[in-house]
Amino acid sequence: MTGYENGKDDILRRLRRIQGQVRGLERMVDEDTYCIDILTQVSATTAALQSCALALLDDHLSCCVSDAIAQGGDKAQKKVTEASRAIARLVRS
Amino acid sequence: MTGYENGKDDILRRLRRIQGQVRGLERMVDEDTYCIDILTQVSATTAALQSCALALLDDHLSCCVSDAIAQGGDKAQKKVTEASRAIARLVRS
Amino acid sequence: MTGYENGKDDILRRLRRIQGQVRGLERMVDEDTYCIDILTQVSATTAALQSCALALLDDHLSCCVSDAIAQGGDKAQKKVTEASRAIARLVRS
Amino acid sequence: MTGYENGKDDILRRLRRIQGQVRGLERMVDEDTYCIDILTQVSATTAALQSCALALLDDHLSCCVSDAIAQGGDKAQKKVTEASRAIARLVRS
Repeated sequence: MTGYENGKDDILRRLRRIQGQVRGLERMVDEDTYCIDILTQVSATTAALQSCALALLDDHLSCCVSDAIAQGGDKAQKKVTEASRAIARLVRS
Repeated sequence: MTGYENGKDDILRRLRRIQGQVRGLERMVDEDTYCIDILTQVSATTAALQSCALALLDDHLSCCVSDAIAQGGDKAQKKVTEASRAIARLVRS
Repeated sequence: MTGYENGKDDILRRLRRIQGQVRGLERMVDEDTYCIDILTQVSATTAALQSCALALLDDHLSCCVSDAIAQGGDKAQKKVTEASRAIARLVRS
Repeated sequence: MTGYENGKDDILRRLRRIQGQVRGLERMVDEDTYCIDILTQVSATTAALQSCALALLDDHLSCCVSDAIAQGGDKAQKKVTEASRAIARLVRS
């Protein structure tokens, strides 16, 4: 059904860690931590989110897109176009 | 002390919203939401984190860096170099 | 052979335009143009390069990767992994 | 006048190298090089452009912005806002 079926635990673990990083950021701001130290932590959180997205995308290409291509027909090209658009959003965000 | 002293509430509000977005991502994965819909939400969360970083950076330049420059001396150049490195981390993350 | 066989003219046109943008940047620096105006033009050039990469990647997924998947076997997964790595480099650059 | 006055030769050298990279990309496409190899080279070119932008920005903060702040008045805050907007364009491109 979903491309990350086998990697679900890994994705959830990554998201919980990111959740912790964002809570850490709130605490840092609350305690008036120096701006640059907060920015360093924001960059680390952004990088963790991007890695999570790349893991999801790899699963999606290996499963959903590959299945659609193996079955052939119109749906295959649709899936590729949909994936390309998601990649564009990632690259531009 | 910190550059975001006046914007602290705004930064905390942004971080709480990002926190909510990450929790939303966990729920989506938990409920086996379609990969592409999750990726769209990850891109939105990354963009929100970057906007938060840019707000912090603007505060930092307007306060901490500007104060150091106004006072002059060695510290001014140090603050600019430190800010440039934080910007590089943001651009590359 | 290559995924961009049909889009080759489009890719070459994009690269020539980017080439022109970089030459424009050299001229701007040479004529001591104001830093911020140069930075705006660098951002536009970076965005043009990324769009070109996304066009190449879409062609690659539609042709090379799709062909490998349709043929099945070991090569299919290899192609997907290779594409995922290229996407990661794009997202992180 | 410009922030990169002292670093002008360095900036021009970087841009000429990027120019060479883009010409190399045109040649690769012209010779039907494999998509992934082209994408790797596009990522390297994007990274080089970003490094060039970061060098320009550092010069700009050290000179133009610092001078405006040292002189004080309205212009100082204007310069900081202008720099923040350029940073936002870089981060988002």
